[in-house]
Amino acid sequence: MNSAILTIGDEILIGQVSNTNADYLCRKLFSLGIPVERVLSIPDNEEEILKEFDSAYNKYDVVVVTGGLGPTHDDITKTCIVNFFGTRLVLDRRVLSDVRALFKRRKIKMSASNMGQAMVPEIAIPLRNDRGTAPGLMVVKNNKVFCALPGVPHEMKRICERYLFPFLERKYRRLKSRKVIIQKTLHTIGISESLLFDTIGDVNRIIGNKNGTHVSLAFLPSNYETRLRLMVEAGSKEDAETEMRNSIKKLRSKAGRYIYSYDESLIQEVTGKLLKKKGLTLAVSESCTGGLIASKITDVPGSSEYFLDGVICYSNEAKMKLLGVRKSTLKKFGAVSKQTAVEMAEGIRRVSKADIGLSTTGIAGPSGAITDKPVGLIWIGFSDNRTSFAKKFIFTKDRLRNKEVMSKMALEILRRKLLGIDAEA
Amino acid sequence: MNSAILTIGDEILIGQVSNTNADYLCRKLFSLGIPVERVLSIPDNEEEILKEFDSAYNKYDVVVVTGGLGPTHDDITKTCIVNFFGTRLVLDRRVLSDVRALFKRRKIKMSASNMGQAMVPEIAIPLRNDRGTAPGLMVVKNNKVFCALPGVPHEMKRICERYLFPFLERKYRRLKSRKVIIQKTLHTIGISESLLFDTIGDVNRIIGNKNGTHVSLAFLPSNYETRLRLMVEAGSKEDAETEMRNSIKKLRSKAGRYIYSYDESLIQEVTGKLLKKKGLTLAVSESCTGGLIASKITDVPGSSEYFLDGVICYSNEAKMKLLGVRKSTLKKFGAVSKQTAVEMAEGIRRVSKADIGLSTTGIAGPSGAITDKPVGLIWIGFSDNRTSFAKKFIFTKDRLRNKEVMSKMALEILRRKLLGIDAEA
Repeated sequence: MNSAILTIGDEILIGQVSNTNADYLCRKLFSLGIPVERVLSIPDNEEEILKEFDSAYNKYDVVVVTGGLGPTHDDITKTCIVNFFGTRLVLDRRVLSDVRALFKRRKIKMSASNMGQAMVPEIAIPLRNDRGTAPGLMVVKNNKVFCALPGVPHEMKRICERYLFPFLERKYRRLKSRKVIIQKTLHTIGISESLLFDTIGDVNRIIGNKNGTHVSLAFLPSNYETRLRLMVEAGSKEDAETEMRNSIKKLRSKAGRYIYSYDESLIQEVTGKLLKKKGLTLAVSESCTGGLIASKITDVPGSSEYFLDGVICYSNEAKMKLLGVRKSTLKKFGAVSKQTAVEMAEGIRRVSKADIGLSTTGIAGPSGAITDKPVGLIWIGFSDNRTSFAKKFIFTKDRLRNKEVMSKMALEILRRKLLGIDAEA
Repeated sequence: MNSAILTIGDEILIGQVSNTNADYLCRKLFSLGIPVERVLSIPDNEEEILKEFDSAYNKYDVVVVTGGLGPTHDDITKTCIVNFFGTRLVLDRRVLSDVRALFKRRKIKMSASNMGQAMVPEIAIPLRNDRGTAPGLMVVKNNKVFCALPGVPHEMKRICERYLFPFLERKYRRLKSRKVIIQKTLHTIGISESLLFDTIGDVNRIIGNKNGTHVSLAFLPSNYETRLRLMVEAGSKEDAETEMRNSIKKLRSKAGRYIYSYDESLIQEVTGKLLKKKGLTLAVSESCTGGLIASKITDVPGSSEYFLDGVICYSNEAKMKLLGVRKSTLKKFGAVSKQTAVEMAEGIRRVSKADIGLSTTGIAGPSGAITDKPVGLIWIGFSDNRTSFAKKFIFTKDRLRNKEVMSKMALEILRRKLLGIDAEA
């Protein structure tokens, strides 16, 4: 059992669109036991598409094609399917009524170019799309599955989840005798890849191969975060899960304090859960992170239960007026200082009546350095009913990377505090 | 002249890491006149890597490999290079001193696994990496360029910009007699792909092929935004640029009011420039967007010149206390209403003394709908010294997509107001 993904479009090859569809399909097909062995991007050129249809369809059990199904003149995937399978276009009344309903719901006039979306290759099963005009097109032939999906990510995902994945699950269920592969990714932040590597010690002694199972550990670093990916291959689901639990236990005993997530949860989800569990509320005051901490926190559904308010105070005036930071503090130590960070955290806590106040003040970059205060410097402040402190970090010269890692680090400090791990060190 | 990208790593194929490196390389190589004709991802399996090295090295002028150069046990690209080119590893003193300097600068103890990073294939030119421990490895042989780069995106980019791209530029300069291809992407928001298509009319009459130039227009929709990508191929740079200007002029005359960016500028950059030019200041009060508008605004270097403060008020209390929204308004119309949005925009303007106040109040989802107020509903408020108004949108049921598109739409309303385009309609 294997699969290939073919993404069609100049936009990928000239770097205008990220191939997030491939990421998603890889993850999902892997977990369905149909691992992707090839991800290929080619331009929207008919001859080339037909050639690659042919080679993928011959070699893989499942071929998923994305892109080129839209209503405009540069969308040629449907034509290629017709030519490749030697079929013809027929009107599908159900697709037509879906397209009509979509426009009615959106209160938009239906354009002529959208009518054509209801013409589908006769050999294909149309997979309905309630979020856009292009249906998925699935051909099942010679015990192979060939499926073309629209390139718009949320439409593609919706069709996969409603139709394609359930279909594949049913079709290949009886083949579950093959090796079971499961994986888990553990997330850390604020520790370098090599220090984490050395902290964990001899990876092969800790995990490795035994009793017919194979365990591998990969270090995936990016932007001050290192993820640890564990992959276990075993003869049965039970064996794989047992070995996974053992491996995680061993990693936890070595580097547990650095691992904030064992299940792909984001740091804002992890801290959100902890706040909810402890019945605590949070407010944030942000300078250099400019609202990104609040935005991350509010990405989590239900965050209104523990997140009260946020204040973004770029100016000294705002720091004084909205948060009560003392003029003398700003004058003596500057806006980017331990003292200001602490007063900001205490201030937002007081103003919002939250249990915990978090703050950031720093130099996001790319310029703005002053004597002794380089670009990338940040003070992260924390205040609760027992303590107030601020912790210093120096990150990069890149503004967007700084905002991202500074926001995550602030949430990591909150996590460590909530768990009683020493966050001030 | 052509190129291929080979990304190595299980992490891509199982969907854990997005191939942002490929996006970047595609864009850059295209603009260097070395278009990418193939992007392929394969697992970090030595046999397979060697096979793909061989086929790519034989077929393409430039092969760029990313990933698998880190200090840990699962990084095997360097071994594959040694085997493929039949070379051996030698200590490179300059790389060693770079690695040592990096650890000294970060005040971190250098680990044993990092020492090995200074061993490089004898045939390769090491491309120095001042942001990480793995140098790039470039082999120039048989008039072909084979280059392996670390997978960490900012390290990879840095090495490309400092060494690889300047090298390719010099090496292939004399071949500039080939066809010149230039491209531009125009960005719109708040208009559907098909309506935009119909607004522009007969694309082939507007642009198309003439005088030996070829112009193509692609519609790239995603999440309520549609990008228009113009690609012009011509015999000379001058012809291409003239035709590009003509095509843009024609598109502008048809759909100019919807186009916020002609040069890849983000909506926050466009509005930032307009505010700066007009000497106006901005403050935002956010409910459903939870800080994302402020975060986008502060993504722009120098935004402190026009962005004063932001307030994220999730609770009714905060709306009243921090922004002066009237209790009677909240009671009569609810928090998600035209009236509340207007009072929030007026309130943040008053509190911060900014020229313009923007506000959002809505239901981000995935749940929280109430009678007559579905998930995805948002009121975006605007207030300046002449007018206050709020505009209603209904987006999706997906919280993160909603936050993203709601934030951009709020900035688009600001843009239209700043340009005197009717934003209230």
